[in-house]
Amino acid sequence: MLLLTPVLVAIVCILMVWIFKNADGSSDRKKGEPRAEAHPWVDKDLKDSTDVHQEEAEADEWQESEDEVEHIPFSHNRYPEKEMVKRSQEFYELLNKRRSVRFISNEQVPMEVIDNVIKAAGTAPSGAHTEPWTFVVVKDPDVKHKIREIIEEEEEINYLKRMGPRWVTDLKKFRTNWIKEYLDTAPVLILIFKQVHGFAANGKKKIHYYNEISVSIACGILVAALQNAGLVTVTTTPLNCGPRLRVLLNRPTNEKLLMLLPVGYPSKDATVPNLARKTLDQIMVTV
Amino acid sequence: MLLLTPVLVAIVCILMVWIFKNADGSSDRKKGEPRAEAHPWVDKDLKDSTDVHQEEAEADEWQESEDEVEHIPFSHNRYPEKEMVKRSQEFYELLNKRRSVRFISNEQVPMEVIDNVIKAAGTAPSGAHTEPWTFVVVKDPDVKHKIREIIEEEEEINYLKRMGPRWVTDLKKFRTNWIKEYLDTAPVLILIFKQVHGFAANGKKKIHYYNEISVSIACGILVAALQNAGLVTVTTTPLNCGPRLRVLLNRPTNEKLLMLLPVGYPSKDATVPNLARKTLDQIMVTV
Repeated sequence: MLLLTPVLVAIVCILMVWIFKNADGSSDRKKGEPRAEAHPWVDKDLKDSTDVHQEEAEADEWQESEDEVEHIPFSHNRYPEKEMVKRSQEFYELLNKRRSVRFISNEQVPMEVIDNVIKAAGTAPSGAHTEPWTFVVVKDPDVKHKIREIIEEEEEINYLKRMGPRWVTDLKKFRTNWIKEYLDTAPVLILIFKQVHGFAANGKKKIHYYNEISVSIACGILVAALQNAGLVTVTTTPLNCGPRLRVLLNRPTNEKLLMLLPVGYPSKDATVPNLARKTLDQIMVTV
Repeated sequence: MLLLTPVLVAIVCILMVWIFKNADGSSDRKKGEPRAEAHPWVDKDLKDSTDVHQEEAEADEWQESEDEVEHIPFSHNRYPEKEMVKRSQEFYELLNKRRSVRFISNEQVPMEVIDNVIKAAGTAPSGAHTEPWTFVVVKDPDVKHKIREIIEEEEEINYLKRMGPRWVTDLKKFRTNWIKEYLDTAPVLILIFKQVHGFAANGKKKIHYYNEISVSIACGILVAALQNAGLVTVTTTPLNCGPRLRVLLNRPTNEKLLMLLPVGYPSKDATVPNLARKTLDQIMVTV
């Protein structure tokens, strides 16, 4: 009966409640976390700059923006109404011919055109004019092949294990799989990195507001610029490959891969899925 | 001494550990949560479709995509190299004249142009061709004014309380504040909603992969199309206003406001901050 002293009872009770509460805590965590079928790597891959906003709490690390900038009169190119309608119609028709092309020939493209389309992308608006983008243009065949190896390795796991049957079914109509020949054949790969924060001249961090949205807007302009120049591409988001590609390309840790665009001319036998776009009344509501 | 029975000791211990563990749990939560300075509303506002991927676990609610689609030969418009260089150069120069303009005249714009720029935006690529966008075009002066009231109310709180001194400083060079006159004066407001999921014909949910990135790409094309047509805009992300604007415009709960673009001609006295863009070698790396 010595065993049932108040002290021992106390110890046993403390242990039991401790274990119970810990079990409780871990099941709580499970509720918050994506479930097994929920593809946590997608969520992780998609994770954007929100954590950077949180870091803002470390006030000393962050640099405030410089003083006020002069404001100047805005000069505008105005066209007659008829010309506006014509220009907007022609722009739509040009872009409506764009398709995501996965069969790209190995023919070289003029590098001046690549410079120009990236300059065009760089005119995109960005949160507080932070311009949080880096465009890595890969022409070197060995580096392209290393990129292909990394992506195919990860994509095979994506298709077979990570994506789940629904995603694989949803992709079926594109006839895509983890073999990405265009990563070797396309004369140029453009890897677009978002800078989740920047650096001021004094080395302190600069907040990049809405960096993922800003860089995606720049990619939209890039896609339009490529179409305008007569080149083809396909917007890809290599799932789970970001960190390895970042290291391969020697990009700093504040840069995260957002998209990869293989760029070139279509190969002679290029095909595309016979998909239609939504009509204007399916995407626009007027109030 | 009756009070110190083993039973009482047990109860006291259970209570103490319980209280201790709860306190521990709440401090854990605080570590995970953004701190006071960290602008949790930004994080919330920026939260994208990742939760939808999590919902995927509820398998019955979700509809798989239809069967395979026919693949057809891709037909391509190829220009001579000289023409490609010229086209890409001119496109860059056109877009490089674009500025975010916050002074918009109340002059009406041709609605055919608005239709065309939205049709152009609708050609954007999207995750698994889900086209997860809704463009709400607001012309009605009363609705525009209600939008202004909602945004100014929230923006005043943003500037005075939510954003914190650093953000306000970073915005200083734009001379912005919570007064948004352009919401009344611009003849057209385009509110762009991302559909965080869609619906199949049978009412089941359809996954919209990478919907925020896709809709941002479409916004990039929209911005280019507006510039090409000779209209001005400013890309705004009305912080914390999404739900109220969604309700005002009768949009369903699967749609979340991503951006608002006031569109029109610049007012006569429009000014812009005298900012420069990064040069090509600051944004491009060649490998």
